[in-house]
Amino acid sequence: MNRISLAQANQIIAAAFAKGAELKLKPLSVAVLDPGGHLIAFARGDGGSTMRPQIACGKAGGALALGVSSRTIGTMAVERPTFVGALGGLSQHGVIPAAGGVIVIDNAGEVLGAVGVTGDTSDNDELCALAGIAAAGLIAAG
Amino acid sequence: MNRISLAQANQIIAAAFAKGAELKLKPLSVAVLDPGGHLIAFARGDGGSTMRPQIACGKAGGALALGVSSRTIGTMAVERPTFVGALGGLSQHGVIPAAGGVIVIDNAGEVLGAVGVTGDTSDNDELCALAGIAAAGLIAAG
Amino acid sequence: MNRISLAQANQIIAAAFAKGAELKLKPLSVAVLDPGGHLIAFARGDGGSTMRPQIACGKAGGALALGVSSRTIGTMAVERPTFVGALGGLSQHGVIPAAGGVIVIDNAGEVLGAVGVTGDTSDNDELCALAGIAAAGLIAAG
Amino acid sequence: MNRISLAQANQIIAAAFAKGAELKLKPLSVAVLDPGGHLIAFARGDGGSTMRPQIACGKAGGALALGVSSRTIGTMAVERPTFVGALGGLSQHGVIPAAGGVIVIDNAGEVLGAVGVTGDTSDNDELCALAGIAAAGLIAAG
Repeated sequence: MNRISLAQANQIIAAAFAKGAELKLKPLSVAVLDPGGHLIAFARGDGGSTMRPQIACGKAGGALALGVSSRTIGTMAVERPTFVGALGGLSQHGVIPAAGGVIVIDNAGEVLGAVGVTGDTSDNDELCALAGIAAAGLIAAG
Repeated sequence: MNRISLAQANQIIAAAFAKGAELKLKPLSVAVLDPGGHLIAFARGDGGSTMRPQIACGKAGGALALGVSSRTIGTMAVERPTFVGALGGLSQHGVIPAAGGVIVIDNAGEVLGAVGVTGDTSDNDELCALAGIAAAGLIAAG
Repeated sequence: MNRISLAQANQIIAAAFAKGAELKLKPLSVAVLDPGGHLIAFARGDGGSTMRPQIACGKAGGALALGVSSRTIGTMAVERPTFVGALGGLSQHGVIPAAGGVIVIDNAGEVLGAVGVTGDTSDNDELCALAGIAAAGLIAAG
Repeated sequence: MNRISLAQANQIIAAAFAKGAELKLKPLSVAVLDPGGHLIAFARGDGGSTMRPQIACGKAGGALALGVSSRTIGTMAVERPTFVGALGGLSQHGVIPAAGGVIVIDNAGEVLGAVGVTGDTSDNDELCALAGIAAAGLIAAG
């Protein structure tokens, strides 16, 4: 099957949370989406603020919508703020231009879904997303 | 604010899935929301269709929005369809008028959040929501 | 690859239009979506009214959202009008409860996308969707 | 209303894709809208990310909405970012401020519709839109 399974999604979330605990980060929230941007699994750490679900989904969903990581979208947003701003209202989860949204691929490069993490700094969020993907034996798009 | 913890939400989801497996139901999706209607945790069983996240959240979120179970909202919708229909666009997750969305309370009757289940018949969805709530040692609002 | 290709989508559209011409139907519009509900290809016959894109996408997208044909959703809507009505605002293309939206699967039963046709009667629309799917060598979900 | 016919729209799409192949561009997506901003035809090249339909429509639709190319809207957005940003939510397809959306006119200067291309750089996208319009024997607004 060409998407992240629920079992894999739960592995990703558990490993991302473990990485956050190891680094003593603020409460994380993690969303795992299928290739079409639809939620497979989500968890919000106790103490996480109310909009964390949308931010996690908007990082992962924006990455799938444009075919690049949310870190790259963050760079695009610095260069072309109104272009990236204009995209937000046009897709289900919006487009969040900050690191932490990472596309997941298989060995052949096919998209299996995406992971979005929020709660700490964007760099730390992305680090936890990558840790989660690796722990599930999957590949983060380069 | 007292609310369902992430650990409790994960217990609810695991127990709801276990009930679904025991009854050989179709793939379930389960959402757990905090008292403000914001997602704590979600899981979509492999094979669940793409809109299951919105339906699970719309059952639980509608229950919190109106202060009654989504089964009761289903009854209201038969009696006053345009009233219930008019509510949908006004809350974040909409209002889904079908059983499977159950408010969770503590011993003092305080609202801790809600659970929404979708995937099989509404009656079976609700049964799994109740099984999940009980397994976590919590109380479903009467 | 686990989705309808653009070449297949164009075959589907051409064959659906050919069926419409053979049966002397009103101008048709045909949308082909990937498994996540995102448009692959669309065509609106000359003379088709302005909302045909949304109706074609809403039939196909609703089918994917709920995992059943838009004909079945039409039956659900008769039995539970407010439930189906409540779903409309919660997914990208809405949910159009009328025949003409058909899920496309492969030999293993995996979802490859969906086709939505509008312009004539719902029964004729569906007939053209099925003709398009068959002409592309694909399978309509039962 | 004079408008691009479906046959012309298909010519535009085929020629834009041919130009993209000739220049070895990334997978393109092409939308052709009528003068009212309603979709006539669309195609997303295999491998194009999920939001390409909205971006192609948003370039073409924004051009029609404001009566200038999306390249000009991109320039406006640099000078008046909040003005252009405020427009996005007010029209069906939004307003995408980047080259690739081109208005199509006849010999008398009457608007027949618009073409929107996305997938590569904005400059290359526009080049393919112009190639498509020329191949169909139509005129790009100056």
